[in-house]
Amino acid sequence: MQSRRDWLRSSIGIGGFLMAPSSLLSAQEKAYFRPRALEPIVRLSSNENPYGPSEAVQKAMGKAFDHACRYPYQYSDALAEKLAKKHGVGPESIIITGGSTEGLKIAGLTFAHSGGEIIAGQPTFLAMMDYAKQWGATIRWVPVGADKGYDLPAIEKQVSAKTKMIFLCNPNNPTGTLLPAAQLKDFCQTVSQKTIVFSDEAYYDFIEETDYPSMDALVRAGANVIVSKTFSKVYGLAGLRIGYLIAKPELADQIRKNVVAMSNVLAIAAADTALQDEIFYNFSLSKNREAKQKIYTLLDHLQLDCVRSSTNFVFFHSKRDIRKLGPQMLEKGVRIGRPFPPFYDWCRISTGTLEEVDRFVSGMLEVYRG
Amino acid sequence: MQSRRDWLRSSIGIGGFLMAPSSLLSAQEKAYFRPRALEPIVRLSSNENPYGPSEAVQKAMGKAFDHACRYPYQYSDALAEKLAKKHGVGPESIIITGGSTEGLKIAGLTFAHSGGEIIAGQPTFLAMMDYAKQWGATIRWVPVGADKGYDLPAIEKQVSAKTKMIFLCNPNNPTGTLLPAAQLKDFCQTVSQKTIVFSDEAYYDFIEETDYPSMDALVRAGANVIVSKTFSKVYGLAGLRIGYLIAKPELADQIRKNVVAMSNVLAIAAADTALQDEIFYNFSLSKNREAKQKIYTLLDHLQLDCVRSSTNFVFFHSKRDIRKLGPQMLEKGVRIGRPFPPFYDWCRISTGTLEEVDRFVSGMLEVYRG
Repeated sequence: MQSRRDWLRSSIGIGGFLMAPSSLLSAQEKAYFRPRALEPIVRLSSNENPYGPSEAVQKAMGKAFDHACRYPYQYSDALAEKLAKKHGVGPESIIITGGSTEGLKIAGLTFAHSGGEIIAGQPTFLAMMDYAKQWGATIRWVPVGADKGYDLPAIEKQVSAKTKMIFLCNPNNPTGTLLPAAQLKDFCQTVSQKTIVFSDEAYYDFIEETDYPSMDALVRAGANVIVSKTFSKVYGLAGLRIGYLIAKPELADQIRKNVVAMSNVLAIAAADTALQDEIFYNFSLSKNREAKQKIYTLLDHLQLDCVRSSTNFVFFHSKRDIRKLGPQMLEKGVRIGRPFPPFYDWCRISTGTLEEVDRFVSGMLEVYRG
Repeated sequence: MQSRRDWLRSSIGIGGFLMAPSSLLSAQEKAYFRPRALEPIVRLSSNENPYGPSEAVQKAMGKAFDHACRYPYQYSDALAEKLAKKHGVGPESIIITGGSTEGLKIAGLTFAHSGGEIIAGQPTFLAMMDYAKQWGATIRWVPVGADKGYDLPAIEKQVSAKTKMIFLCNPNNPTGTLLPAAQLKDFCQTVSQKTIVFSDEAYYDFIEETDYPSMDALVRAGANVIVSKTFSKVYGLAGLRIGYLIAKPELADQIRKNVVAMSNVLAIAAADTALQDEIFYNFSLSKNREAKQKIYTLLDHLQLDCVRSSTNFVFFHSKRDIRKLGPQMLEKGVRIGRPFPPFYDWCRISTGTLEEVDRFVSGMLEVYRG
C-alpha cells in the first residue's frame, strides 16, 4: 500500500505542493494567492472558494469601513444599477439579498406558502424547499436520473394547477451535473407558460462549455423565470452574504417586499469590486480546474466513479456509507460534504486550495488503503 | 436675525467647532475620533452613530478578511455563546440576525401571520408590523399619550384572545420617550401571562437613568418576553447588519427556524470586538449627550418644544409641516427624519458628529429666521 501512495504522491505532485505550495504559481497568480495557513480541519464541505476575497476586494472593503455606520440602502441601489446593466434588465428587476439563500427562501415563501406546491429534483439544494415547507408548501420531489442529472420530462409531468414554482439548480448541487443547454432553454420557455421556473445559477461561472446560456435571457424576454446569482462561489465571498435575484418587474415587486435582511455595506463594496476583478475571477476558475483534476486522478486511482462536475465540487461514489466516511475523514483533518439522501454511498467533496485538496487526497488514501 | 444667529453661534460654540472640530477632544477621545469629511448632505435621518466603527473594530474586521470566504455559521455560534453569557441565558436563547430588523420581521412572521393580531403604539418603529401585515396580521394601533410616550394601560385594554404579540420599542423610536422602569416591568410581567411581549431595546444603551432594567431579566425568569438588541446604534455598525433576539428556548426555537439571512463573518468579528471596546462605547455616549445638548439649546432658542430624549435623536415640535421642512433642510445640506404620522408638524433629528449637528443648527437658523 505504501508504494501505491508513493506512486500517487509523485503522479499528482502532492509532495511538492505540501513542501512549497506557492512554488508552482505564475507571478500573476502569486499576486493573488495569499498563502493561507492550513487549518487543523480543512473545510471541503461547503463549496467555498478559499482564495477569496481578492486583494482588490479587501482594499475596497477597507475603504468602505467609514461607511459601515450607515444603513446599506443607498449603497445597494447603486450596485443594483450595475447588476441590471450586466444582465440587460432594468434595476427594478434586481433584488439584492443576504446571499442567494435569502433569495431562495423568500421566493419560496412568496409563491408557495399555505399549501402551494414546488417541484424540485432530488437531491438538490434545499434552502427554498425547507423554508417553504415550514410555511405550508408541499414539495413534489423528482429523483435525478441514472446520470445524477435532473429528469426534466419527469419534472414537467408533475406540473399541475397546484404548482406554484419549479426549482432548478443548474449546475446542480450536490451532483455537479449540467443540463444540456438546448434542453434547459426549451424546458424553461415551455414550462414557464404554466408556472414560475426558478433557475439557481450559483455555480454557473464554473461551466466549461462556451456560450452556455444564463436563463436571464428569458427574464429579458418577459418569461415567468427567476434567476438567482451569488457572490459566494467563484468570487469567494460566502462569509459576506450577498447574492441577488433577477426577475421581471411584476415578479420582482412581489418578492422584494418580502426581503427580510438584504445585504450589508461591506458586502456591497466587495461585490462591486469583485465584478470588475477579472484576474481573480479567472484565477479562481483555473485553480478550481486544477483541484478537480487532482480529485479525478485520485478517484481514478481508487476506482471510484464520479460525476464530471460543472461546479467547484465533485460528487463521487464513495462505496462507503457517508455517515461513516465523514467521521473517518474528519480524523484525517478533512471535513467532507454531508449526506445527500438517497445517495448515502456517495460523497460531495468541495475543491479547496491545492494544499487543502492534497490533505483530502492523503486522507482518502489512508482511509481506503484497508 | 443676524444678531440672533451670532448669539447662538457663540452660545453653543458653533464657530469654534466648525473651525477646529477636534480641538475640544481629550487625548483619549482624539484616538477614537476619526475626522470624517463632512458630506454634501449630512444624514441625520436614520439614527446612525457616525463615529463607528471604532479603530479596534476596524482592526478586527481586517483580521477577519481571511474568513470572508467561509459561511458564517461556525462564527456566529461562538458569538452567541458570548452574548448568552452577557445576558445570563443559555446560547439556545440567542438568535443572531441581520440587524435587529430581521429579528423584528421574522418574529412578526412567526407569531402573527394569517390573521394574528399585534398591538403596537403609534408612532413607533414599523419593521415588525409592516412585515406581519404583508402576511395577514392585523395591527391594533394605540396612540401615544400627551407626553408622546406609550400608553400602557390603553395597550393592555386591547389584549384579547386574538392577540399574538405586543410590540414595545423602549426607548421609543421616533418619540425618544422612556417608560418608567417600574411601570414597564410590571406591565411585561402581567401581560406576558396572556400574550408575548416583544421589547425592542435598540436604544437601551442611551438611557441616562442608572440601573434601568433590560427586559432580559424576564427572559431569564421564563416569561413570554422577547428582547431585541442591535449593534447598529451605540456600536456604530448599522451598515454591517447584526443584531440578536433573546428569548426562552421554547420561543427561540420557533423563531430560529424562520431566520432568513442571519449575519455575516465581518459583522460577527466586529460585534465580538465592539462588545469589549468600552472606551468607544463610552465615547459614543458622551458625544451623543453633547450633540443632544446642542440640539436642545437650538430648540430652546427657537422656542420649539421637544421630548427629552433617551436615545440618539430628538423629536421636536417643528410647527411646520415636516413634508415641507424636509426639502427645506435638504437644501441646507441636512437630511432630517421622515414624517411620522400623525405628527406631521414634528421632526425627528438624529445626533451626528458635532460638525454634522452644527450643520443642522445653521440650517435651522436659516430656515426659521423668516
